[in-house]
Amino acid sequence: MRKVRFRDQAGATREGEWDDDGIQFGGTEYDPAEVDILPPVEPTKIVCVAANYIEHIKEAGRSIPEDLPPRPGFFLKGPNAVAGHGDTVTLPTPAATEEELAGREKGDIVLGQGRMDYEGEFGVVIGEQCRNVSEDDYLDVVAGYTCLNDISNRDDQDLERNWVRGKAFDGSAPIGPVLATPDEVPEEPRVQLWVNGEQRQDSNNDELVFPVSKAISEVSRFLTLEPGDIVAMGTTVGVGPLSDGDTVDIEVEGVGRLTHYVEA
Amino acid sequence: MRKVRFRDQAGATREGEWDDDGIQFGGTEYDPAEVDILPPVEPTKIVCVAANYIEHIKEAGRSIPEDLPPRPGFFLKGPNAVAGHGDTVTLPTPAATEEELAGREKGDIVLGQGRMDYEGEFGVVIGEQCRNVSEDDYLDVVAGYTCLNDISNRDDQDLERNWVRGKAFDGSAPIGPVLATPDEVPEEPRVQLWVNGEQRQDSNNDELVFPVSKAISEVSRFLTLEPGDIVAMGTTVGVGPLSDGDTVDIEVEGVGRLTHYVEA
Repeated sequence: MRKVRFRDQAGATREGEWDDDGIQFGGTEYDPAEVDILPPVEPTKIVCVAANYIEHIKEAGRSIPEDLPPRPGFFLKGPNAVAGHGDTVTLPTPAATEEELAGREKGDIVLGQGRMDYEGEFGVVIGEQCRNVSEDDYLDVVAGYTCLNDISNRDDQDLERNWVRGKAFDGSAPIGPVLATPDEVPEEPRVQLWVNGEQRQDSNNDELVFPVSKAISEVSRFLTLEPGDIVAMGTTVGVGPLSDGDTVDIEVEGVGRLTHYVEA
Repeated sequence: MRKVRFRDQAGATREGEWDDDGIQFGGTEYDPAEVDILPPVEPTKIVCVAANYIEHIKEAGRSIPEDLPPRPGFFLKGPNAVAGHGDTVTLPTPAATEEELAGREKGDIVLGQGRMDYEGEFGVVIGEQCRNVSEDDYLDVVAGYTCLNDISNRDDQDLERNWVRGKAFDGSAPIGPVLATPDEVPEEPRVQLWVNGEQRQDSNNDELVFPVSKAISEVSRFLTLEPGDIVAMGTTVGVGPLSDGDTVDIEVEGVGRLTHYVEA
């Protein structure tokens, strides 16, 4: 089932099912184009796994297998980061100056240009409060999957120990359009991303360093996950810059397509 | 005014005033020892300022003025980190091994021992949703101040780019006992901390690198602060280890004393 949250024409927030005909709720069928699609969940936090696809680790200028992380690395986004299907994200203005960034290199990413990157990912949505989840039992706490864009402010990220200016700004995590239940989605789904209709990412031939079972097991070892929280599984090769007026589409196998807009 | 949230004997959550006589709510006076004191607010996120006291920067093994940060550095804790007055925090088990930490040094902190440190801080509580707050107007968005312990898992922190295992585990941010309104508290209040009654921190003679006005202005430049969110102002010199059975007291000038317990 593909679950969708939306505001109907009267302003009421509804939780319906998005099927091939439209959105179904309370015996009424809604046209998705006629309602406001909301983020499918309201996370208390988004826990992101860093550097979790082999090809993305390479493009960030690191070596395989020397620089493979020995354990999942995590970073956090708060509820302020959430945006939804059809929303327009205003990119932040970097605080880092070209002078501060002089001499710094980050793979093939040129710093000092105010570069804001897309990172198409699949997000695992938690279904119940949990801690100390074993790898074998991780599906017990998974409500389903959604699309996520981990928008990244590269200049500030490169100067920060913790990626707060870099990754946790308002709107840095568009999610949606739906929460697809686990029966709809493979464990390592294909993730594709387009900018203005041109394909930029396709993880079909890439490899996860840590699977969902490991990410949930490891993060729940030291913190409590709540219903609606998201564990974002990292991005594949092909990250690149966003600019004013861009349209971003992200498709996760079994979930469908998240579309959002960007302004400077 | 010193505002307190508590559960009364009937289990109802109340927001009262803690004065010299006791806790006042609805014409009734409650004995603080007879009710459950709750965290004074329910933050959607805690934004912590790293390395914000001169003497703490020195004890972490860095030099002044060479290693003074050019701008505030931030890290995040989620709602799962919150604990309250009278609560017992279970310290996490570090995932880092002595082998992984071999050869690493962090000032006078010995790694590889499963060391969990206290860091007494004052927390600024936000009173209204805000962004792009100017330094001159920061008091418009401040509801008041509280005590905060930024409990830190040093082994994992030293191996992480982002301090999630290190700083964002369950219970890593005891807060309280009250929210004291700005008229009760100076802009750079004295912060003291005791472990088992022995004083370990006293910021009276130390210096903030970035004042509250700068921290709020800078963080609100790229993210929205919500009512109840906390900006934690960093710790002073004297950080040290916690262990099973410890009692921690933190006193912020004008706020009063937060007491919490620790178990391994």
